[in-house]
This record gives sequence, structure tokens and C-alpha cells, in this order.
Amino acid sequence: MKQNELKQSVGIKAVDFIQEGMTVGLGTGSTVYYLVEELGRRVQEKQLQVQCVSTSQRTWDQACALGITMKPLQEVSTIDLTIDGADEIDPDFQGIKGGGAAHTYEKIVAVNSRKNIWIVDESKLVDQLGAFGLPVEVLPFGAQQLFQRFQAEGLQPKLRLDDQQDPVHTDSQNYVFDLELGTIKHPHLLAQWLEEQAGVVEQGLFLDLVNTVIIGTDQGPKIISDIR
Amino acid sequence: MKQNELKQSVGIKAVDFIQEGMTVGLGTGSTVYYLVEELGRRVQEKQLQVQCVSTSQRTWDQACALGITMKPLQEVSTIDLTIDGADEIDPDFQGIKGGGAAHTYEKIVAVNSRKNIWIVDESKLVDQLGAFGLPVEVLPFGAQQLFQRFQAEGLQPKLRLDDQQDPVHTDSQNYVFDLELGTIKHPHLLAQWLEEQAGVVEQGLFLDLVNTVIIGTDQGPKIISDIR
Repeated sequence: MKQNELKQSVGIKAVDFIQEGMTVGLGTGSTVYYLVEELGRRVQEKQLQVQCVSTSQRTWDQACALGITMKPLQEVSTIDLTIDGADEIDPDFQGIKGGGAAHTYEKIVAVNSRKNIWIVDESKLVDQLGAFGLPVEVLPFGAQQLFQRFQAEGLQPKLRLDDQQDPVHTDSQNYVFDLELGTIKHPHLLAQWLEEQAGVVEQGLFLDLVNTVIIGTDQGPKIISDIR
Repeated sequence: MKQNELKQSVGIKAVDFIQEGMTVGLGTGSTVYYLVEELGRRVQEKQLQVQCVSTSQRTWDQACALGITMKPLQEVSTIDLTIDGADEIDPDFQGIKGGGAAHTYEKIVAVNSRKNIWIVDESKLVDQLGAFGLPVEVLPFGAQQLFQRFQAEGLQPKLRLDDQQDPVHTDSQNYVFDLELGTIKHPHLLAQWLEEQAGVVEQGLFLDLVNTVIIGTDQGPKIISDIR
């Protein structure tokens, strides 16, 4: 199958996890796009009653246009289920997110969700995290000093630039450093160290948050789960 | 002595630590005000050559008006010495800052300084931290959920409001929660837990950063130092 078809089959499959009455977190990305399309169809055609929060303006706009009831995060108490993409997932269901520079809002939605599911194509499954540069959102104030501290720690930071070679800004008007680590041997230790650094807003390791992943394969969507 | 005289004597005394050629971090607050006044005098009258960075617009403006050479943080490599106030200091030189909602920038300057000195009046010295509400800067996105998590953890958060009862915004357009803890028995554990929470930008515990404090007393400024 073509990659878009794989993504579509995964997105459609993921909607099966959304039940009547749920508050659902909708992530962002090309696979989530198909999830939102299918969810909109079920809301319209099957009168599925749900309310949703989103991690980006893009998903918010798409969902609203499809007639899905959208709520600002501050208007919901608990999120029953969040479905999002990921940039890398290891065999322990630990992941990296932030390729779209939205990992801070994505993590805030994820930690406030009873259950999180990632939907990805097979290319996102890795034996060890780190080939994908680890995104870290940082405050502009003191960013140069933080960059040097990361360099001194051997973390190979790279300031993320846009097509015009200007620094990318997040929704909170911060910068993103991508840490070109190759492999991340100790994700919890790295996460803790990064979070302790003044100026770090949020880092892109999503640890111990997900126990169900839906993977697009040529044989159809494959659901893997651990017992956590 | 009146409190303003105590603050003035401490501010003047602190300038003795500033040496020719230094890059100096200037904090914010009513005691730092006198420090900056005296530094300006020595720059003007004694041709003291220094360059400074600041943690707030207010200090920046005051220093510029006095002819002190000010640099944006990104234009300096290392800060030799930062002098700032504090809201509470315990016998181990651990402190709380953030009463002015500027603790994020203050901490970024502090961690990038070779040496930090706090200048305070005696009322800021406490046996145990925590009577002063611990300021935590948080992103508006998900702030309500974070507030509830803090409540569930027994951290007694209070959203900081201005005179018009609107939420106070920091320079980074975030909110401040003040944790009304009474006593903080385990500052390092608390700091680590807070920094791990998605949505926390920076918390106001300044730990292991300072080993010299200048205190205003009726007998004159008193310098206390430990051997760290």
C-alpha cells in the first residue's frame, strides 16, 4: 500500500477506540488527519456523541469544519482518551515527539488523559530512540547559554530553523533545539536532566504515557499493547 | 535604621564585590535599586569599567540612565557575578524568589553566573523555607489541569492576580501559581517534582546557587558566606 493509504487505514482503525460520551484529545499530523476525517464521518452519519480537545490550531479547524464538538482545554475536567502520532517509538512504548514543534501542548494533553494511543506507520518503530533528533522547547532568553551547556554535555544541539533560515517559533513563541544524539541509552535520566535546566520549557521524550500503538502495515492496521 | 536605609547600606556594600572588567548580572527589586545607583556612581566618578546584563526591564532602564554599559544576555559569554534579592533564605543558603514574577529570567541569569550574591534585609532570613508562597511560572495552556494536580498533591496553589483581579502575566506571557506550603521540608524533591510537570516553565526554589549573602542590619551590612 502507499503510505497515505497506510495512514488512512490506521486513522480509521483508531476511531474504534472512541466511545459514546468520551472526551477525546486529538493530536496533530498526517495520520491524525485521517482519524479526524473518520471521526467527523461517524459524528455526522452515526450521531456519535463526543467532545474533543486539540493540540493544535490545524486539528481544531479541521474538526470544527467536520461538525465535531471542540472544547478549549480549560473547559474539560478529564480527557478519556488521546490519539496522536509519534516520531519514534521503542519496544517499551517510549517515544519521541516534537517534529511539528508542538510537543509541549501535546504532552500537556497527554499527561491529562486517562489513556493515550499512538498511531504511526512502521517506519516510526525503532529498537532504540535517538536517530530522530530530540526536540526541546526553550525560552529565547538565555537560549545561547543553554545551547552552550547542551554542547558541553555532548548533546549535539541544533537550533531549528524554518525555510527562510529564521528560528522556528512554537505556539508559545519559544525556540526549538533538536538534540542529534544518534542513540538515547537512558531516556529517563536524559528527560530529568533536561527538565532541570532553567530555560527548558518541555522536552520531547514521552515516557510511560502510552501502552497501545496502532501501526499501519501492508497487512492492515496492527494493534500492539502491553499490560501496563 | 529605617528599612530603606538598611537596603541602601546593603546595596552600596554589594558593589565592593564588583571588580574592574567584570560582566555583572543585575537583579531586580528595592534593594537592587540601591546597588544599581551606587554602581552607576562608581562608573561615572571612578571610571569603573564593567558590562552588565539584567533580569528585568526596570533594572535595564535604571542602569542605562546611569551610564552603565548594558548588554543583552545573548551578547555575553559568561557572567562573572550576579547580585540579586531574594524572598526567603534558609541557613543552608537555599532560597525562594519570584515575588516579582521574574524568577524565570532571574534563574536563567543565576545559573549562568560564576558567582551569585543575594542582598536582603534580615526579615528574609528564615529557619525553614515555605512561609513565603513558592512562585511557579506555568503555561496558560492546561493551567487549570495543572492547578488541580497541584491541589491533589497538597501543594495549595493559588493563581496570582493583579489589582484588577486578572491573572498576573510574566514577561513570557505565562501565569504564576503561588504554593502556600507553610514549610518546605524537602526543597530538592519538591523542585524536581515541579520541574517534571508538563506546563511548568520554572519554579522559584533557587537551590545550591548562592554562598554569599549580604544582610542589612542595624549594626551595618553583614556578610555571611559558607565554604561551598
